[in-house]
Amino acid sequence: MPPLALTLGDPAGIGPELALSAWLGRGGTEPLPPFFLVADPDFVERLAHRLGRPVPVAEVDPETAAEVFPRALPVVSLPSGARVAAEPGVPDSVNAGATIESITAAVAFVKAGRASAVVTNPIAKFVLTRTGFAHPGHTEFLAALSVPPGQTPPRPVMMIWSPELSVVPVTIHVPLKDVPALLTQDLVEETALIVARDLRDRFGLPEPRLVLAGLNPHAGEAGTIGHEDRDVLAPAVARLRAQGIDIRGPLPADTLFHARARTTYDVALAPTHDQALIPIKTIAFDDGVNVTLGLPFVRTSPDHGTAFDIAGQGIARPDSLVAALRLADRLAANAALRSSPLGGAEIIPFSVYAGRPRSPGAHHFDAEDEL
Amino acid sequence: MPPLALTLGDPAGIGPELALSAWLGRGGTEPLPPFFLVADPDFVERLAHRLGRPVPVAEVDPETAAEVFPRALPVVSLPSGARVAAEPGVPDSVNAGATIESITAAVAFVKAGRASAVVTNPIAKFVLTRTGFAHPGHTEFLAALSVPPGQTPPRPVMMIWSPELSVVPVTIHVPLKDVPALLTQDLVEETALIVARDLRDRFGLPEPRLVLAGLNPHAGEAGTIGHEDRDVLAPAVARLRAQGIDIRGPLPADTLFHARARTTYDVALAPTHDQALIPIKTIAFDDGVNVTLGLPFVRTSPDHGTAFDIAGQGIARPDSLVAALRLADRLAANAALRSSPLGGAEIIPFSVYAGRPRSPGAHHFDAEDEL
Repeated sequence: MPPLALTLGDPAGIGPELALSAWLGRGGTEPLPPFFLVADPDFVERLAHRLGRPVPVAEVDPETAAEVFPRALPVVSLPSGARVAAEPGVPDSVNAGATIESITAAVAFVKAGRASAVVTNPIAKFVLTRTGFAHPGHTEFLAALSVPPGQTPPRPVMMIWSPELSVVPVTIHVPLKDVPALLTQDLVEETALIVARDLRDRFGLPEPRLVLAGLNPHAGEAGTIGHEDRDVLAPAVARLRAQGIDIRGPLPADTLFHARARTTYDVALAPTHDQALIPIKTIAFDDGVNVTLGLPFVRTSPDHGTAFDIAGQGIARPDSLVAALRLADRLAANAALRSSPLGGAEIIPFSVYAGRPRSPGAHHFDAEDEL
Repeated sequence: MPPLALTLGDPAGIGPELALSAWLGRGGTEPLPPFFLVADPDFVERLAHRLGRPVPVAEVDPETAAEVFPRALPVVSLPSGARVAAEPGVPDSVNAGATIESITAAVAFVKAGRASAVVTNPIAKFVLTRTGFAHPGHTEFLAALSVPPGQTPPRPVMMIWSPELSVVPVTIHVPLKDVPALLTQDLVEETALIVARDLRDRFGLPEPRLVLAGLNPHAGEAGTIGHEDRDVLAPAVARLRAQGIDIRGPLPADTLFHARARTTYDVALAPTHDQALIPIKTIAFDDGVNVTLGLPFVRTSPDHGTAFDIAGQGIARPDSLVAALRLADRLAANAALRSSPLGGAEIIPFSVYAGRPRSPGAHHFDAEDEL
C-alpha cells in the first residue's frame, strides 16, 4: 500500500510541528504507518531547527517516501515549487496559496494511487477566505476536489471517531436557530446511509449499529416538547429501518453517551453540532479523529484547530494527529481490500472498536429524568 | 439539625424501593444522614415485604425520626391519612393525591423547621396532570409552595451536581426552536446571580467561578455562526462581571467539559438542556444530583426518573438518591450556619468539590476545531 499524504495545513499553526512530533514517535510499540508531508522541505527543515527537534528532512517523491520514512521525515514539494516562510502563531494570507496547493496535491496523489489516504493538518478559514477561498470549509473543499471540475461533489459527512465513541453531527457549523428547518427527513436519511455504508466498507462492521439522538430535550417526550422528533426524526428512522439499516431513535440525547449506553451502538448521529461534539470531546479530548465519510477516498484529520496561540512553543500534543494517521491507514487498507478482485469478503473487522465492550443492547433510556 | 424529609414520589416508580435500598446502606463507611419518608407506612412495609428487603418500618413524627433511624426506616404519615396501593411499574392517577400531598407536607415540615431539607423522589408528570396538576414540573410546584398562596414564587434554577462537574441549563424543557428567543440577557443574568449566590451561601465557595457555554457551534465564532453569542450572551457576561461575578464566556460548548477544562470552573451554565445534561450524564450517570437553587429551602432530587420499566424488580441503583441525601444534608448544614447569629463567616467550604483538582485556569479553548 502506498504511504499516507499529510497536508501542510496553516504553516503558522501547530500542524507542521505536529508532523515533526508524530515522525519522532514513529518507532513506538505500535509503529506509525509511513506518511509524507506535502510542503516546502526548506520550511520544514527550518522549523525543526527552530524547535530544536532532531528531525532530518528528505525531499522525496511519493514512491520513495516509505523507504525513507524510518530515517527521515519525507517531504514532497509543492508542485509549483512554492516556498513558505511563516512565523508560528502569526497567520498570514501570503501562505494561503501553499496551504491550498498542499491539499490539492494530496488529493491528486491519492486519486492517482500514489498515496493511500489524505490526512489533513488544520487550516484557518479566515486566512484563506481573504484570498478568495469560497468553500464553506476544509471538508467541502475536499469533496469538490474529489470529482472532475464542474461535477456535483458527493455530500461529505463528518464523523468524529475515538476508541470509546463515534459521533456524527447531522448539521454542523450553522446557527442553532436554523437547525430545526435544516433537519429534514432526507438529510437524516442521506446522512445515515452514508454512515452505514462507510462503517461497513471501511470500518469492517458488517452490520453497523446506529442511533439517532433527538433534537428536543428528552427527544420531545412524544411530541410534547417540540414536534420534530415525532414528525421528522421518527419517520426518517422508520424509512431507514425499512431499508435494512440498524438504527434506533430518536433517543434522548442526554442519556445516550455514558459508558453503558455506548456499548449499545457503533455510532451516534445527533441533530446539532454540540449534541455530537460535547460528549466526544468530554471523554476523548486528546485523541479524537475527524473522519470524512462519503468521499471516494479516505480522509482523516486531527480533531483540533490551528491553535495559533500555542504554535511554535513545542507544547502541542500530537495525539490526535497520530490517531488520525493510524486510522487513515487502517481505513485505506480495508478500502483497498474491498475494491480488490476478491471483493470485500476478506475484510477483517479490525480492532478500532477494540476498547468498546459489546452488550446485547436494551439500555434503560428514561424520558422522565429531572422532571 | 432536624432530619431530611424524603417524598414518596410516584409510588409505582422506583422511588419507594430506592428509599428502602438507601436506608439499608445507612451504616457504610460514610454514614447516611437521617431522613424520614413522607408516605403511607403500610404501603412502605408491604413493598419491603414484596421485595424481600429486611426493612423494619416505623411510623414516626419528624421529631422522633432521627432517633429511630438507626433501627428502622422512619415514615411520617400523610397528613390526610391517605392510603396508597400501587403496583410497581403500573402508574395510576388514583395515587396522584398521595404523591402531591407528600410533597406539600415535606415542604411544610421544612418551613416549620421540622425537617432540614426536602429530598424528592421522582414523579411522572403525566400521572398528575390527568388529575388537574397544573404546574410545569416538580420544581415549579416546589417554588409555588415556598411562598404563601397568591404570592409570586421565586424563580427556581436547576443545577445538576456531581463531584466531577456541575451544570445549569439556562433553558430546560422547551422545544429547541424556542431557545434563541427565550435566551435573553435578563434570563442569563438572573440565572447566574442565583447560581453565584447559592454556591456561596450553601456550597461554601466564597468566590464561585462560573462559565457560560455559547448557544451556537464554537460560541458563534465572533458572530459568524449565529448572532446570539455576540449580541446576547457576551453582554450578559459583561454585566455580570461588572457586578463582581466571576464568570467567563460565552465559550465553545464542546471543549468545555473535558477533564482539564473542568478544573477551571465550579459550575457551567449552558443555553440548552442538552448542552448541560449531555456532559454530566456522560461522566456521572449514576451519581448526579438535581439541586434546586433559588428556593428559600434546600431541595435535592436524584437525577433520574420514575423508571416504571424496572420498578419492583429490585434492580434500580440508589446511588443518585444516596448522593441527593448526602448533598441535601451538607447544604442544609451550611444554610443553617449562614443564618445563625454569627452570620456565615464560619461556613467551611466542605469537600463536595474535593474530587476536583484546581488549576489556575487559562485552558486552551480553540474555536477553529474540526473546520
